[in-house]
Parts: sequence; C-alpha cells; structure tokens
Amino acid sequence: MPERITLYTAKICPYAHRVEIALAEAKAQFTRYEIDLQNKPEWCPPSRTVAQTFPQTTPSPESVKLAESLVLVEFVADIFPESGILPKDPVQRAKARFFIEGVSSKLIPAWYGFLLRNAPVEDLYSALEYLQSLLPAEGFVVGEFSIADIAITPFLARARLALINDIGKYPEGEGKKIWANITSGKFARIGKYAKDLFARESFKVTFDEAHVTEALQKLFANLRSQ
Amino acid sequence: MPERITLYTAKICPYAHRVEIALAEAKAQFTRYEIDLQNKPEWCPPSRTVAQTFPQTTPSPESVKLAESLVLVEFVADIFPESGILPKDPVQRAKARFFIEGVSSKLIPAWYGFLLRNAPVEDLYSALEYLQSLLPAEGFVVGEFSIADIAITPFLARARLALINDIGKYPEGEGKKIWANITSGKFARIGKYAKDLFARESFKVTFDEAHVTEALQKLFANLRSQ
Repeated sequence: MPERITLYTAKICPYAHRVEIALAEAKAQFTRYEIDLQNKPEWCPPSRTVAQTFPQTTPSPESVKLAESLVLVEFVADIFPESGILPKDPVQRAKARFFIEGVSSKLIPAWYGFLLRNAPVEDLYSALEYLQSLLPAEGFVVGEFSIADIAITPFLARARLALINDIGKYPEGEGKKIWANITSGKFARIGKYAKDLFARESFKVTFDEAHVTEALQKLFANLRSQ
Repeated sequence: MPERITLYTAKICPYAHRVEIALAEAKAQFTRYEIDLQNKPEWCPPSRTVAQTFPQTTPSPESVKLAESLVLVEFVADIFPESGILPKDPVQRAKARFFIEGVSSKLIPAWYGFLLRNAPVEDLYSALEYLQSLLPAEGFVVGEFSIADIAITPFLARARLALINDIGKYPEGEGKKIWANITSGKFARIGKYAKDLFARESFKVTFDEAHVTEALQKLFANLRSQ
C-alpha cells in the first residue's frame, strides 16, 4: 500500500468518479484535490478521452503519477485487495473485464453521441441491450460489487441526471421519456441494476447530485440552441 | 487452472495473436483452432473491433466462453501466475496497463487509418512518439516482458510486414521508407524495442511470417486501386 495517495479529480467527471468509488469501497485514506474544469478542460469534460486522475505515493516531484480511470480502478483493487472489488476467480474476473469493455466500446460512445450530437437513440438502446444481456438474473455483474459495476455507475448516474433534467442536444422534452424507456419494459433489468448501483454506499458518498446537475447544465444546456 | 483450453484464433489476427503469445509465455497446454477468416469475417480482419478468441474450460456447451484479447491476456496471466507476464508490483502493473491503453487508443487507430484509408502518417508518428516516451532507456515496458509488450507486439509485427512489402492504401513505394522512419533516427528507441520484441521466443513460435504476409496481401493488396 502506498504511503500516501492524492487524487486529482472533479465531481462532474464520470471517469474520475470511478476511482473515487473504488477508493470508497477500499475505505482508503487519500487526499482529494478537486480540479476546476474550466481551467483544465483538456483532461476531463465528458468525452471519449479519459480522466487524468493521479494517485501519488508521495507529494514530491518524484512521486509516482498514474492516470487512466480503468487503470486506476485496477490499481486500487491491487493495493487494497481487502476491498473485494476484483473477483478472486479468474473467470469471474474475465467476465467483469469483458463487461467493462462493452461499457467502453459501446455504451460510452453511444451515450455521448446522443447527449452531445443527437445521434440515434437506437445506438444507446443497442448498447444497453447488449450490456443487459451480460447481467445475471439479479445482483451485480459478477457476484459481489466489482470493478465492472464501478466502471458503469458514474455514466448511468450522469445519464439519469441529464435525461431527467432534459439536458442535451436531443429534442426538448425527450429526456424524461428516454430515461423511463431505458429503465423499464424491455429494460427493466437495467432499471433494477441502476437502482442497485445507486443504492450502493460507495456511490452515494461520492456523488454530489446537486453539484453534478448544475455542472451538466452549465456544460450542456446550450447544446440544443447551437 | 482450467482443465482444458481451446483457443479459436487466426494467424493473421493481431488481437488473437496477443493471446497466443501469452499462452506461449505461460507454456500452457491448449487446443488451437484456426478460424478461416473468409467464413467468419465479422470477428477478426484487422479493424478496431476485437478478436473473438474463446478459451473453453471444457469442450461441452456448458463450457466457459471468454472473449476480447486484452481480457484473455489478463486471464492467462491470472491462471498461469508463474508466466510472470503480469508484474507483481501494483505500480508496475498500472504502468503496463497505461501503456496498453495508449496502444488501444492511439497506435491501433492511427495504424489502421494509415493502412486502410491513407490517413496522415503523422498520426502514426505521434502515436509512436507517445509510446516511445513511455519506454524506459532500454528493455521492455516495465521490468520483465509483460502484458504491455504482448499488447503491442502483434501490431508492430504486422505493420512491419505491411510496410516492407508496401501493402496498404498509402502511396506506392512509401512503405519501406516509413518502416525505416519509425525504427531509426528519432524513433531509434522504438526500433530497438521492436527488435527486442521480435526476438522473444514466444513471438517467434507464434508468428508465421509467410502466412501472415500472404494473408495481408490477399486482404489489402487491392486497397490502392480502390
């Protein structure tokens, strides 16, 4: 375990949020440094680029600097094995990582395409249908809450906030309907899964809903008129 | 360790090749099943989609089927810890995974963009410059040969074959020059690294240069006239 971890993060950033959830699961001691995205816009605002969150083992220039949200989540799992976020069984572990791959290659591009460019909502539905097909009948992706659940939670949480507040490039008034669509009916399993994720203590203590809603408004409220 | 592994693979496929190198490093016993890409083109031919290589723990329908090259490489590391391909130190491990992220998000799209669409060669140079900056003064990405080296080797090997044989959409006669550019001068470190990778026994026994050259010709020789 490193002597000291500093996490450079931003409440709005779903990538950075993954690392905060992992650290909360691990009950890790760390220094949290909130970055102002307006002054460092290149590293976060939701996009397909990845978060630059750096745990440092010492605060000196010689400290180890690590980045990339998924790398950091695995790092937290490695240095805090008692967190239990990395399944012990190699097959379960592979299934967790396979799910994460689907989040990265399917859900995230479909969600940002819809949010930022009004890309077809069907792409979002397809991505969720695919991920839903990987879920067991109930509970989390594999056994206990794991890196797989950590990888998707911040995106679902922000998608919910954007949709229920109708923030995005898509036609006005569609948001609430789409959130209902993707959490009920044929997506009832995703709906239940999202509910389970949002009820997790490590999510609740790391998600500032009011702050993120305001930040989403600020970043994306003007998209529709552009 | 699973009782039995079957790997569905294809010699041409760089993604699948990663898994073969990992299995060779682990000196694993497995059944190798060569897929004919002409009959299953959706899962491989070099593109940004990922290989569908399935190790199966039993040959029955109930067998565990796993896919995604990077997931499988980690799986091999997990079930064969004595392979040594996953660094023991969490920081080294994070650095290996960070390097892999650069291969996925920078090198692979730049290489296929250049090969298939004659996208600017500068993108390929940038990606290699970035990866070169992550390399230590000598040797592999982190300490011993690891998952990081496994992730890049199949792509560098196929890039070399395509370029020295002038296969691709880019202007005729450019291939050899570009291979020379990216392995000498300001890219001397990458050149040395590629040489070290290609000298690795696990690469040599899993790479059928004549077969891959012919397959690349067949797949991409007509690109220039299209």
